[in-house]
Amino acid sequence: MKIDILSLFPEMFTGVVSSSMIGKAVEKELLDIKVTNFRDFTTDRQNHVDDYPYGGGAGMLLQAQPIFAALDHVKEQRGDLGRVILLDPAGRKFDQQAAEELAQESQLTFICGHYEGYDERIKQRVTDEFSVGDFVLTGGELGAMVMMDATVRLLPDVLGNSASAPGDSFSSGLLEYPQYTRPADFQGLTVPDVLLSGNHQKIAEWRHRQAFLKTCQRRPDLLADKTLSKEEQVWLRQFKQKKD
Amino acid sequence: MKIDILSLFPEMFTGVVSSSMIGKAVEKELLDIKVTNFRDFTTDRQNHVDDYPYGGGAGMLLQAQPIFAALDHVKEQRGDLGRVILLDPAGRKFDQQAAEELAQESQLTFICGHYEGYDERIKQRVTDEFSVGDFVLTGGELGAMVMMDATVRLLPDVLGNSASAPGDSFSSGLLEYPQYTRPADFQGLTVPDVLLSGNHQKIAEWRHRQAFLKTCQRRPDLLADKTLSKEEQVWLRQFKQKKD
Repeated sequence: MKIDILSLFPEMFTGVVSSSMIGKAVEKELLDIKVTNFRDFTTDRQNHVDDYPYGGGAGMLLQAQPIFAALDHVKEQRGDLGRVILLDPAGRKFDQQAAEELAQESQLTFICGHYEGYDERIKQRVTDEFSVGDFVLTGGELGAMVMMDATVRLLPDVLGNSASAPGDSFSSGLLEYPQYTRPADFQGLTVPDVLLSGNHQKIAEWRHRQAFLKTCQRRPDLLADKTLSKEEQVWLRQFKQKKD
Repeated sequence: MKIDILSLFPEMFTGVVSSSMIGKAVEKELLDIKVTNFRDFTTDRQNHVDDYPYGGGAGMLLQAQPIFAALDHVKEQRGDLGRVILLDPAGRKFDQQAAEELAQESQLTFICGHYEGYDERIKQRVTDEFSVGDFVLTGGELGAMVMMDATVRLLPDVLGNSASAPGDSFSSGLLEYPQYTRPADFQGLTVPDVLLSGNHQKIAEWRHRQAFLKTCQRRPDLLADKTLSKEEQVWLRQFKQKKD
């Protein structure tokens, strides 16, 4: 997968691109990331990329010109831009389904805004607006990193243990069951007996029930779209009775 | 504000901590960030911090011991831990309200998990579990950076322009209106006339209406908790008629 990032703060990406799972994917040549500083493409003599908003108001806006020129440059270098993603609080909510969708693409281009906002005309070059959550960040960089991480780890051969990705939270429609590792007794805190029993059927049942109850408690919204098994219907009834 | 981060990949933070708004807040001594590699606190002879899950299953889990020991160390150094935050997909959804809440604290400690998950007993030392969204990341680091960014920018004196923070998306309960900056005509794409009119009342009205309609279209859920003005009630009726 090719990923291009347009940012005024390329150095923000150094730690993430060189270490962790993304760094390893780059090393294995499964991923080719280029960060382009769009300040290099401004036609402004003082190298500004921002200006005051028409109609007044606080803060500065990113201008269309440097973004358009940087996109033209990347397109010329790469041959294509793939999906052009703008990080924006008003965009489509980024979730696991979106990550799976983006993992099918061969190229992604992220535009990371900064300052108070950007000139609306930038959207003419954008195919997707995404938001990573209902909070305000100083720029699009962290959102782009989050989207990259969630997407890249789904690419074939990126995660060492191929069994990892499908067992995650959300992929089963339930939150993950509680897990324990050694020692069995740590400072008086013990592991549930069933996990030490060696009875695989009982363990599977316990985990399924724990995952289901945790989802009932914390994220009942996730159950709305799920077809419940008979077992799950019983657990749900018991959970509701307990709550009353 | 003091922020401590427990992570196996401290180098992931270098770019973000040294540049951007967070870097500036550190420079101004408004923020004191320390990243602790909890691998330094394992009692395992091979320096492992993970082990197989009890009861079987794919992947490795983070053990409680190195986390407990690293928290003890930070507490000794700092005198306190403040709120101890674990990044987890099943945690409370992080949003602007949570950022405002955390911005009131004087100290935060983030635990960044990795591998397939962590020993459930780690939660004994945690005051808050947070999730930044319904997607799976390879570790807690990016989630911690997102939470830090959204929180730190709300601290007094961090943002240069003090008028900036309150005008953001979400703080008014509406998405942001479209904005434009120079030039008025860029490659044939023009700025709406009203913004060039100099009529401040008309501009304010146009912006309010645009913000309201964008919210109707993209995030009607945000309107559920909002008391609508008479004007907004008219716009909503017009919007619904158009849709039919």
